[in-house]
Amino acid sequence: MQLTQSLHKALRECPASLATICGERRHTYAQLADRVARLAAVLQRVGVRRGDRVGMLGLNSDRYIEFLFGSLWAGAVLNPVNHRWSAAEITYSLDDCDCKVLLIDDAFVGLAPMLRERSKALVTLIHVGDMATPDGMLDYESQLASAQPVADAQRQGSDLAAVLYTGGTTGQPKGVMLSHDNLALDALATLAAAPRPSRSVALHVAPLFHVGGLCFVLQLALRLSCHVLLPGFDAARTLATIEREKIGESFMVPTMISLLLNHPDFPMRDLSSLGTLMYGAAPIDRALLEQALRLLPLTQLVQAYGQTEASPVVTILPGAYHCLDGALASKLGAAGRPVSTAEIRVIDDRGAERGVGEVGEICVRGPTIMLGYWNKPEQTASALRDGWLHSGDVGYLDADGFLYVVDRIKDMIITGGENVYSGEVENALMRHPALLMCAVIGLPDPVWGERVHAVAVRRPGADCGEADLIVHCRELIAGYKAPRSIEFRDELPLSGAGKILKYVLRDQARQQRGSV
Amino acid sequence: MQLTQSLHKALRECPASLATICGERRHTYAQLADRVARLAAVLQRVGVRRGDRVGMLGLNSDRYIEFLFGSLWAGAVLNPVNHRWSAAEITYSLDDCDCKVLLIDDAFVGLAPMLRERSKALVTLIHVGDMATPDGMLDYESQLASAQPVADAQRQGSDLAAVLYTGGTTGQPKGVMLSHDNLALDALATLAAAPRPSRSVALHVAPLFHVGGLCFVLQLALRLSCHVLLPGFDAARTLATIEREKIGESFMVPTMISLLLNHPDFPMRDLSSLGTLMYGAAPIDRALLEQALRLLPLTQLVQAYGQTEASPVVTILPGAYHCLDGALASKLGAAGRPVSTAEIRVIDDRGAERGVGEVGEICVRGPTIMLGYWNKPEQTASALRDGWLHSGDVGYLDADGFLYVVDRIKDMIITGGENVYSGEVENALMRHPALLMCAVIGLPDPVWGERVHAVAVRRPGADCGEADLIVHCRELIAGYKAPRSIEFRDELPLSGAGKILKYVLRDQARQQRGSV
Repeated sequence: MQLTQSLHKALRECPASLATICGERRHTYAQLADRVARLAAVLQRVGVRRGDRVGMLGLNSDRYIEFLFGSLWAGAVLNPVNHRWSAAEITYSLDDCDCKVLLIDDAFVGLAPMLRERSKALVTLIHVGDMATPDGMLDYESQLASAQPVADAQRQGSDLAAVLYTGGTTGQPKGVMLSHDNLALDALATLAAAPRPSRSVALHVAPLFHVGGLCFVLQLALRLSCHVLLPGFDAARTLATIEREKIGESFMVPTMISLLLNHPDFPMRDLSSLGTLMYGAAPIDRALLEQALRLLPLTQLVQAYGQTEASPVVTILPGAYHCLDGALASKLGAAGRPVSTAEIRVIDDRGAERGVGEVGEICVRGPTIMLGYWNKPEQTASALRDGWLHSGDVGYLDADGFLYVVDRIKDMIITGGENVYSGEVENALMRHPALLMCAVIGLPDPVWGERVHAVAVRRPGADCGEADLIVHCRELIAGYKAPRSIEFRDELPLSGAGKILKYVLRDQARQQRGSV
Repeated sequence: MQLTQSLHKALRECPASLATICGERRHTYAQLADRVARLAAVLQRVGVRRGDRVGMLGLNSDRYIEFLFGSLWAGAVLNPVNHRWSAAEITYSLDDCDCKVLLIDDAFVGLAPMLRERSKALVTLIHVGDMATPDGMLDYESQLASAQPVADAQRQGSDLAAVLYTGGTTGQPKGVMLSHDNLALDALATLAAAPRPSRSVALHVAPLFHVGGLCFVLQLALRLSCHVLLPGFDAARTLATIEREKIGESFMVPTMISLLLNHPDFPMRDLSSLGTLMYGAAPIDRALLEQALRLLPLTQLVQAYGQTEASPVVTILPGAYHCLDGALASKLGAAGRPVSTAEIRVIDDRGAERGVGEVGEICVRGPTIMLGYWNKPEQTASALRDGWLHSGDVGYLDADGFLYVVDRIKDMIITGGENVYSGEVENALMRHPALLMCAVIGLPDPVWGERVHAVAVRRPGADCGEADLIVHCRELIAGYKAPRSIEFRDELPLSGAGKILKYVLRDQARQQRGSV
């Protein structure tokens, strides 16, 4: 498959239909395709060749959609940058995949001098915004205006389409390489499992740099739908936009749904157009799910479970199972059934397959599994074994083929839909000279799903407080990764082999909460 | 993608669910997978290697499903044989693709000696049935019983999956080569465009050797559904089976729907389980469509338009457009909108693209387009130009992206869902010494959609009648291809270049009908 094909289709099937709505700007598919072909020309003019990476550091906007399709049209590979990362993390990811061209919007243009100074790869910066373009950068709109549209490079199939960076268990982000087929098949299989009408109007509030946001873009593109873009999630604006634009579907992380339902504007807004609300990227709280079912009776809720390495959808729990009574209600705690493209195997720690209801590591096989990690053959070999992606998640399949996710062996915390690897936070903490030992765990949080919590042991005689360590972390890693709370102890529970027993820490935290 | 993946999924997700129901025989997915892995062993034992063709000449049955998956599991390429063809046509197709192994059922085992004598390629015949196995043939069930299941050969992606023979405009059948990706993407895109529930129970009455039947098998396999098989279409049995097995979906050609609705048993049967009735392979009559909407109020009708070379689905007209009133009713005459994988371009006879509403040849591009015709580079080059399949159908796109098919430039007649190329019938007719000239056209038929009609000019002094010529044709080509009626004239309308003007003949036939 070819991710740009939807634009060619739209030019023939619905050139005058709206493709993007962003604030006051509205572009038809004919306009979007024209801008995409011009952006491709601009990229080629600054030296982008087939397979080169093109980055984008920006909030959601119609220009983000143009970046996605324009880069692919030029024959390039997408490198959407996580804008919540620190400059150090961003630089690492740009340099790791040798990303020479970066689009950067008004919200982040202030970071440009630092990125240029630190990055070895960066050559060209394109300012995508409405403010004045700083010296030394190209202005997006004037470049587009002066460009001659070029023909689609028609990369497709197993050609690399995107490098998506995810936090790593060992501290370094890893670039997940996904092909055109990987991403297109994910979108098609997700659509087949969670059907929605053609020519829909959809709202993007989840960040487009995330695989979840990107995948949602493609699910819409395949149906020649209209993308309505908000810069990011804001409950009041989201509610107002759903009402005003008669939004038919959206994708959110559970935290956003919680903020939406509990916002004072919620009862005043007409959300009856919202036919489908897909959610994923984090476990959802049962109480929140029940609230959503009560407050959004006209909306079918659809859960998607997956990970970047699987492009990302592995299972879907369709709308029909989102009910509190009846025969199907018993599946509400499941992550859903595997989509058509995903084959799931649950294994024990020696690789033997587990039976129905038996817990083990979830492994996934199929045509949406990543090509590998960019430039990391060892991590690739460890994640992909005999064609199976070892997800790092722990769960089981029931007798009806529903997957239940019970834990994550990758030691990852999901807070507000963002993955935080404990090891990365622990590495940052341990660079503080006062610490002897630490462990980072996720604690349940009603709004964020989980929040980052550290348990630390200070060196004898050392003197540092919770605030000192949090400030220390924020200099090294993204703010959302830094601990929200730190508990100091004299010692940590250790296994016979000297490994910190995190499950003991989690149990203790659970009991403390229970006794409050 | 990999067409056998659904079996691996089923073994983990629903091994105890029913996979096939054929008369009294019922097999679970665990049993089906076991039989498939044993059949693969049998095929490998008789010398089938990766990429070798394996044929099946038989009516629909659970063993046909086993043939499909077992051949692919063995690493082979499917060659489902059109059982309505003459021995000469079958021999041609077997030899053309060098098909050494043929499965043959009770209904056709009588043809075996003739095929063995005529075919240069055939080496091994496997008798699939309940009657005694003739000498010199292997018995399917005893072979399976003695085999040790082998591992899936895991062919996938662009690997060849099937060679499907279609009648040729020039008289010789052509083998359409379809890959695993071609067929799997077709099924996935069709599902996304015409959503149906997972774990469905479906009835096969259209022949499985046809691309339509094969594609329906795959749409079901992706959802781990249950295949209910009747040997072929029979209105009374179909009605009884829908009621008894609570069939949720089926695929039929319009002729079958007509026979179903007009059968005396129809009012006595409970068809309320039939959620979706997909139809295609031939144009549908407006009166029939209206009757179906009236008589099947609980069933969503879905039209699929396509051709073997496109794996086959190009457009889908979803259930919502099958209505007689309201805003959507105006699209009832359309073939539907292109599925996500299909890009449609309508061109004039010089290759220039036509505008909205302008009639021209329908060309299709996308990942379901065939790899080419087996061993026919010239015909392949003519059908596939710059990545576009030239369909031979004539139509236009409206402003909403709906395709309307108005004619077929390939000069093909579709009778009861079977394609008949006029050229092939004319070639057969002209081998009769009494004929000077002839033209074969399709005339509208209330049951078959179209019927084959010939207009012929006898040589001076020659004496032969309608019946003589029909018998003559039946010796050379399949019975359904032979003319149902022949009109004799003194001359045929010719163009300046001496070409027979078929549209004049069709117009005259239309006027004659109108005046009756």
